[in-house]
Amino acid sequence: MNAAAVTSHLDAGYEQSCGELCEFLSIPSVSAHPRHRRDMIDAADWLVALLRRSGLAARIVSTGGHPLVLGHWRGAEGAPTVLLYGHYDVQPPDPLDEWTSPPFEPTLRDQRIYARGATDDKGQLFAHLKALGAWLTVHGRVPVNVVVLIEGEEEVGGSGIAAFVRAEAEELRCDAVVISDSAMIAPGVPTIETSLRGLAGVEIAAIGPRTDLHSGEYGGVVMNPAVALCRIVAGLQDAEGRITIDGFYAGVREWPAAEREALRHVPFSENAFLAQVDAPAEGGEAEYSLLERRWMRPSFDVTGMLSGYTGEGPKSVLPARAMAKLSFRLVPEQSPADVLEKIEAHVRSGAPAGIRIRVTPLGSARPWRTGRNSHAIRAAARAFTRAFNREPVFVGGGGSIPIVTDFSEVLGAPVVLAGFGSPGENAHAPNEWISEDHLRRGMHASACLWEELAAREAHPAVLHSGGGQAAEAP
Amino acid sequence: MNAAAVTSHLDAGYEQSCGELCEFLSIPSVSAHPRHRRDMIDAADWLVALLRRSGLAARIVSTGGHPLVLGHWRGAEGAPTVLLYGHYDVQPPDPLDEWTSPPFEPTLRDQRIYARGATDDKGQLFAHLKALGAWLTVHGRVPVNVVVLIEGEEEVGGSGIAAFVRAEAEELRCDAVVISDSAMIAPGVPTIETSLRGLAGVEIAAIGPRTDLHSGEYGGVVMNPAVALCRIVAGLQDAEGRITIDGFYAGVREWPAAEREALRHVPFSENAFLAQVDAPAEGGEAEYSLLERRWMRPSFDVTGMLSGYTGEGPKSVLPARAMAKLSFRLVPEQSPADVLEKIEAHVRSGAPAGIRIRVTPLGSARPWRTGRNSHAIRAAARAFTRAFNREPVFVGGGGSIPIVTDFSEVLGAPVVLAGFGSPGENAHAPNEWISEDHLRRGMHASACLWEELAAREAHPAVLHSGGGQAAEAP
Repeated sequence: MNAAAVTSHLDAGYEQSCGELCEFLSIPSVSAHPRHRRDMIDAADWLVALLRRSGLAARIVSTGGHPLVLGHWRGAEGAPTVLLYGHYDVQPPDPLDEWTSPPFEPTLRDQRIYARGATDDKGQLFAHLKALGAWLTVHGRVPVNVVVLIEGEEEVGGSGIAAFVRAEAEELRCDAVVISDSAMIAPGVPTIETSLRGLAGVEIAAIGPRTDLHSGEYGGVVMNPAVALCRIVAGLQDAEGRITIDGFYAGVREWPAAEREALRHVPFSENAFLAQVDAPAEGGEAEYSLLERRWMRPSFDVTGMLSGYTGEGPKSVLPARAMAKLSFRLVPEQSPADVLEKIEAHVRSGAPAGIRIRVTPLGSARPWRTGRNSHAIRAAARAFTRAFNREPVFVGGGGSIPIVTDFSEVLGAPVVLAGFGSPGENAHAPNEWISEDHLRRGMHASACLWEELAAREAHPAVLHSGGGQAAEAP
Repeated sequence: MNAAAVTSHLDAGYEQSCGELCEFLSIPSVSAHPRHRRDMIDAADWLVALLRRSGLAARIVSTGGHPLVLGHWRGAEGAPTVLLYGHYDVQPPDPLDEWTSPPFEPTLRDQRIYARGATDDKGQLFAHLKALGAWLTVHGRVPVNVVVLIEGEEEVGGSGIAAFVRAEAEELRCDAVVISDSAMIAPGVPTIETSLRGLAGVEIAAIGPRTDLHSGEYGGVVMNPAVALCRIVAGLQDAEGRITIDGFYAGVREWPAAEREALRHVPFSENAFLAQVDAPAEGGEAEYSLLERRWMRPSFDVTGMLSGYTGEGPKSVLPARAMAKLSFRLVPEQSPADVLEKIEAHVRSGAPAGIRIRVTPLGSARPWRTGRNSHAIRAAARAFTRAFNREPVFVGGGGSIPIVTDFSEVLGAPVVLAGFGSPGENAHAPNEWISEDHLRRGMHASACLWEELAAREAHPAVLHSGGGQAAEAP
């Protein structure tokens, strides 16, 4: 009984699996839009059906928001229990006209599958589920006990899963958590993330006159809310890219010199990274390197902005209001709640006379950091080495996975973040894709992972050592 | 033969006229949107039909853009010739969800007609056309010769009419130009405008990465175009509301002390004006009074702004581009072409590294000023006094009517700007309306105006004296 037979089985069934994945990707499970509520349920139902035909028990768990999918297989008595996490919700596909093929009509081009969610996170989640199914088909068992927990609110920072983890910690008790929801640092280079940035998002409305006004009759008389909003946004950073919010950097520590030094040896080409997006590294704090700014430093972005007339041609209007969505990425020592308070105070104090400010939180996530020597992480390193024929590298993560700190704190289990997306895969952007090679090897890595996690070295008692911790924990 | 019989006739036919106007208002002749091209033609055709059944000759004049409507009646041998100007195009109706009744379904509420274009300019233009028709029905003639010239590109600063006026100056030769495309200073107070601000509009695109990026993966690395745009917009004014563009105020002179003093006696309630829009006078230059800022000083506004994700909820995106529409109102001594050059230079020099700027002109208009003693203006003053039982006041105009300087320069005729809209009528905003009382009295004023313009005092040779001049003319 070993993973080799499982990977052969996965290869033999690859074409069929690919068709299944495309079916999953064609469900427009956009968690941000209420109009997709029905699609969210369809996606959750689809997963329950997949889990059941793979041989796991599975059910829908209702929450206040989009439902969870909970699966389990507990036939490996005495072996460790591993929780596999993923999410079935996807980012909104806008702007639609920039997609070469429609976001919810999965299309194969150049050995890639193009679709919203192809890599984030449906494709990566699907690879793990197929590997579990293959173990059960080939060997009638998995080397470890498995809990599968899949949420539908990752992209909107929903709180349903966190509440469920807290409430059902006993049912979810495990020795390790496995998550694949990220890209490798370079094609084919296994990559394990040991930190994630947190997130504090807000929507700001600058509200002026009762209604839109004529810009000739009122221009120069009434304060323009769009101008006011621009002043507020522009004032959030200084010329060196440093965020000017009072106390924003309170407690933020420089990373150890050794870790900053280690960044220089990550197999990462700044030029290739930037060429792919056709932009220079001119964002953020000038005094830090690109990878430092991406992984070790907080950042500020406008993710959306709207005011007045945005159609073709001119319109002589002084808009009644203006809106901006702001996103702050956070690092250890920063708490989203604390930062949100400081943002709100700063924004309100920056509003010119005649402008009212409405601040609406848009979801948050705590930052996270872990060591790289837990036995779970070592098992993952071996599994990915087998599948990709290459030793993994350890990196930081620029994005946020809100549930990671919850798993870490509530379940007390080490979290393994080992994604197999590709650089430039357009997660959150038009033309998202996943490499077919990575998808296939990701299935192999997963097949090996269940075996490696069960290996004697990875005995439960040992799995717990070096567990992750929420960055905020004292 | 006098205007009294004409106004009685207009009153008797008011209900029917009202129905006709609603028909005109229901044509969505939005000049800014190419998809309304057919509606523009419908509106022009509708006007030709109205003119013909009123007893005038009328035809469509094709231009490169939306067509002109040209009408005339030349049966008053020896009497002066008067050119009536108006426009049949309207502003876009967005935001649609703020309209109480749909913009192109004219609705009577509270003695007002609500519809896009109700006051700007369909309603005011229509009142003149009905008065002309009533003269021809009641007396078989009008006291003056009449040329009617109506355009479809006033709201987009189209150049078709200006080219036509230059090419056909001989056919359009006249002794005065009459325009009603503005609001009275207070309900029922006849108001004659002796200045207009000019306009320089641009759309700025701030262009960053090739495509939208993940704000976690690229935040703090790549310059955010929306942030860049906010910095540029915020940098266009200083804290006192003064525009910071190099040379923007070059040559701008303070108005004579007497005229500034006269502003204090205009029957204008700042409080009422501001209460109507529920905003304080916090826009523009702090050192000038409200009316000075509105009529005598240039101003800057953002009329539209768009970037990234603007739907409900959050989206982790670093947008590829951001757009803002900027509008600068100009005063005498400023030239739109010169100001546009300075804006573009300023904006380009303000772009942070990593951001490309695209600047697209959005139409312009030259500022205009005239004296208040031309015989045409005196005739208009008498006509409005008769219809509204009140002497007119002389004011400035904050908006722009691009064709006014062309009439003034090319035809050499004095221009009378005497609108009968109301304060707070929401021109260019949702829920635009015209007062039925003003509409009815506007028809009366027009009926009297043709008579007053023909009066001996207003003999052609005299009408020309004190003609307006383009503010830019040396």
